[in-house]
Amino acid sequence: MPYVNIKVTREGVTPDQKAELISGVTDLLVRVLDKSPATTFVVIDEVALEDWGIGGVPVEQYRREAAG
Amino acid sequence: MPYVNIKVTREGVTPDQKAELISGVTDLLVRVLDKSPATTFVVIDEVALEDWGIGGVPVEQYRREAAG
Amino acid sequence: MPYVNIKVTREGVTPDQKAELISGVTDLLVRVLDKSPATTFVVIDEVALEDWGIGGVPVEQYRREAAG
Amino acid sequence: MPYVNIKVTREGVTPDQKAELISGVTDLLVRVLDKSPATTFVVIDEVALEDWGIGGVPVEQYRREAAG
Amino acid sequence: MPYVNIKVTREGVTPDQKAELISGVTDLLVRVLDKSPATTFVVIDEVALEDWGIGGVPVEQYRREAAG
Amino acid sequence: MPYVNIKVTREGVTPDQKAELISGVTDLLVRVLDKSPATTFVVIDEVALEDWGIGGVPVEQYRREAAG
Repeated sequence: MPYVNIKVTREGVTPDQKAELISGVTDLLVRVLDKSPATTFVVIDEVALEDWGIGGVPVEQYRREAAG
Repeated sequence: MPYVNIKVTREGVTPDQKAELISGVTDLLVRVLDKSPATTFVVIDEVALEDWGIGGVPVEQYRREAAG
Repeated sequence: MPYVNIKVTREGVTPDQKAELISGVTDLLVRVLDKSPATTFVVIDEVALEDWGIGGVPVEQYRREAAG
Repeated sequence: MPYVNIKVTREGVTPDQKAELISGVTDLLVRVLDKSPATTFVVIDEVALEDWGIGGVPVEQYRREAAG
Repeated sequence: MPYVNIKVTREGVTPDQKAELISGVTDLLVRVLDKSPATTFVVIDEVALEDWGIGGVPVEQYRREAAG
Repeated sequence: MPYVNIKVTREGVTPDQKAELISGVTDLLVRVLDKSPATTFVVIDEVALEDWGIGGVPVEQYRREAAG
C-alpha cells in the first residue's frame, strides 16, 4: 500500500499529464515491488515558483542566473 | 509534541468540520499517549481531485469506474 | 481517501497504542467527513528526541529548561 | 526540479529495487514533464508494518482479515 | 543534498521574505553540514489559518483565547 | 507556529550539529517572520544513502559518477 507524493513547480501541468504521472508511478510500483494499484495512493503538489528554492535562491532567479 | 498532517480530497470541507478534525485528533493524542494539546500541531491539506490518484487513475475516474 | 501522518517523539509507543491511534483517527474521518476506512491510510513516524526541536533547542533540553 | 517521496511498507525492499524505483520515477518525470534528472530528488521511506494503518487497523491485521 | 520544507500560516508572507528564508536555511546547511547549495531544495508551504490547529483548536481561536 | 522538516543523508550528523540546525532555523523564522520559538517545531530526518536518489540513481552512484 504505497503512498507517493510528487512535488513539482506550478507551471501549467495539465490534468492529462497528472494522469500520466499517476498511472506511471503506480505501474512502476506494481512492476518493481508487486504492489496492488487498489491500495496505491499518489498525491501531486504543484508549488509556486516563489515557494521553491534551489542554490540558495528562488527557482526563477536560479534559472536566470543559470541562463546567464 | 505531536505533529499531525491530514490530507483529504478538496470537496467542500467546512471550517467547522476542520475544527472537529483538529479537536478530535488532539483529544486522541491526549488520551492514547498523554500528549499536551499546547504542543500538538494539526495541519490539514485539501488536495484537488485531479491531484489525487488511486488504482492508477485520478480519483474521479476511479469513482466512476467503481460506480460503473 | 484520506492520508494521515502522525509524528511523535520516540519514547516507547507500544504496538497497541499505535493500533489505537490508527483506529481512532480512522473513526474520526468516518464520523466527520464520512470517509471510507478501506481507503484511509495512517502512517506513524516516531522521531528520535535529538531530531525534534522546539523553542530553538532539542526537545530534551526544552523539557529540562521548562522543568527547571 | 521535482521532489518525490515514496513510502512503502518495510518488507525487504532490496537496494536494487530501490535503484529501479529511483530510475523509473525520474524517467517518468523526464518523459511526462521534461524535467531535468540532475535536479530531481527521490526519497524512499520504508515504514514498519505496525506504523501503517489501513481500514482502521495495522496493515498486518488488515491482511489477515482480508485473507480470512 | 538536503530537502527542507517550511510550513507557516498564510498571513501575507512576501516574496522577499520567502527569498530570505530560502537563502537563510541554505546558508545554515552549508555552514553546519558543508552541504552544496546547488543540491539543496527548500519548499515553502503557506497554510490557511483554518487548516492549522494548535491546542486542539484552529489557530485563530487559539490566539483569541491566548489573548483573552 | 511554523513547522520545519529537514531531510539530509545519513552520514554521521552529530547531536551538536542537529542542535545547531534547530537553533539556526528557529532564529531565521524569528528574524524574518517574527515567529515565536515556543511554537516552532523542527523535525530532522536522516535518510540512508540507498534511499536518496538524484540524477536518476542512488546518491552514492551519483557521487562516484560526478567524481569519475
